Amino acid sequence: MHPSQELRAAIRGGRFDKPTSGKAPGYVQANLVIVPQAHAFDFLLFCQRNQKPCPLLEVVEAGQREAKRLAPGSDLSRDIPRYRVFRDGSMTEERTDVSDLWRNDFVSFLLGCSFSFEKPLLDAGLEIRNLTCGVNVPMYRTAIPTRPAGAFSGPLVVSMRPFTPEQAIKAALVTGKLPEVHGAPIHQGDPGAIGIRAIDRPEYGDPVPIRAGEIPVFWACGVTPQEALLNAKLPLAITHAPGHMFVSDIREEELPFFHYSVR
Amino acid sequence: MHPSQELRAAIRGGRFDKPTSGKAPGYVQANLVIVPQAHAFDFLLFCQRNQKPCPLLEVVEAGQREAKRLAPGSDLSRDIPRYRVFRDGSMTEERTDVSDLWRNDFVSFLLGCSFSFEKPLLDAGLEIRNLTCGVNVPMYRTAIPTRPAGAFSGPLVVSMRPFTPEQAIKAALVTGKLPEVHGAPIHQGDPGAIGIRAIDRPEYGDPVPIRAGEIPVFWACGVTPQEALLNAKLPLAITHAPGHMFVSDIREEELPFFHYSVR
Repeated sequence: MHPSQELRAAIRGGRFDKPTSGKAPGYVQANLVIVPQAHAFDFLLFCQRNQKPCPLLEVVEAGQREAKRLAPGSDLSRDIPRYRVFRDGSMTEERTDVSDLWRNDFVSFLLGCSFSFEKPLLDAGLEIRNLTCGVNVPMYRTAIPTRPAGAFSGPLVVSMRPFTPEQAIKAALVTGKLPEVHGAPIHQGDPGAIGIRAIDRPEYGDPVPIRAGEIPVFWACGVTPQEALLNAKLPLAITHAPGHMFVSDIREEELPFFHYSVR
Repeated sequence: MHPSQELRAAIRGGRFDKPTSGKAPGYVQANLVIVPQAHAFDFLLFCQRNQKPCPLLEVVEAGQREAKRLAPGSDLSRDIPRYRVFRDGSMTEERTDVSDLWRNDFVSFLLGCSFSFEKPLLDAGLEIRNLTCGVNVPMYRTAIPTRPAGAFSGPLVVSMRPFTPEQAIKAALVTGKLPEVHGAPIHQGDPGAIGIRAIDRPEYGDPVPIRAGEIPVFWACGVTPQEALLNAKLPLAITHAPGHMFVSDIREEELPFFHYSVR
């Protein structure tokens, strides 16, 4: 049994409802967005047009709850430690199980997550400040618009990690090889240049110190589709709660080949 | 004016209706598939699940005929030298203009084309046999199934170029860097291993000689979605005619950044 399968079994059994960072190490984790079928084409198109923040790994069609490629035997209505329920553009509740809310017209989207590039960055000898500080990564709303699709639009959200200029080059090379999990940074240096007003007050997550000689480096972030979801004001939609991800059976090493295998 | 814009103007004006290979060199060319909106989610999902044969560059929504990102000012109902019209799963006619068939519920899909990796292969000092012979590239139906989505399913179609084993390694490295236009080969050597019965009788295009010491090398091919379209038996669908591509204003050098820019 994969450690990822054990973790999903614990989640489904009600024995684990915490953030998944560092759990089942080496297995790809994913963001989840569930929308009714009437909005599924537009959301799929939103992902296609905004691949930096929305790197789509798998789409599970209406009538199904199993992510067959990422995790055979999974149940998307029960296998995530914490869900968020959105009604008419507001987050109305968090739950550990949405099986009683499930509708046959739900379409589920699983998107790559930056957790999968943390180990390659650490392996390259880089420090990840929020890990050192033991806090959530800081995330900011930018002035860069996403490319709209139907009801979905809104600002690009970015995560930030501080590095020296030399380390930032290394970090760009390492993450640039992983487009399935946001890829290379989208900006480095002046936060104001992308519309960030206060680097010490992130809109999501926690602030981290930027030391002398360091610059902030910004990556497209998987919170972006949640902003688009708020703007879209669907009657009902469901996501994972930030940090409480879907844990797949795919090894991180397989990511570069995930979309490029034909068997 | 870009050479690509001049070529599209000539096509629209009825002054060019030939294959586009070698025309407007350096500009990305694309496969076109047009389906009614009722089938658009399924076809978009088919592309998402089969990125090797169906590397999606742009989707043009219902009510629009302009590929805004690939070619501002373009008209997908008139800017392709030759179209194919499919009715109930049969190809019923070829035309040079489909503006009188256009419906407001048409959704257009533009997919990367292997024409864009020919120049990088030539630049790497490799010979492309079908170019040397002045014929169309040979294409084969394989026994590898695509991942189905809704009504769309069918076999993977591959294109073939012969190389020595050493050249084949070089060709894999060159094309592996271009996933937007089918990427690395999916097979090399024994045609029977992927269900090809007669290497001298391709299902599409023309046969080419394989010389002593050479092996056939196979790439996922943009004809694959046309096979899926035949299987889907939609009442109406439109594609380009093979070799008669949509010519965009995007430079081939920009391809690696096309999906990974956020501005």
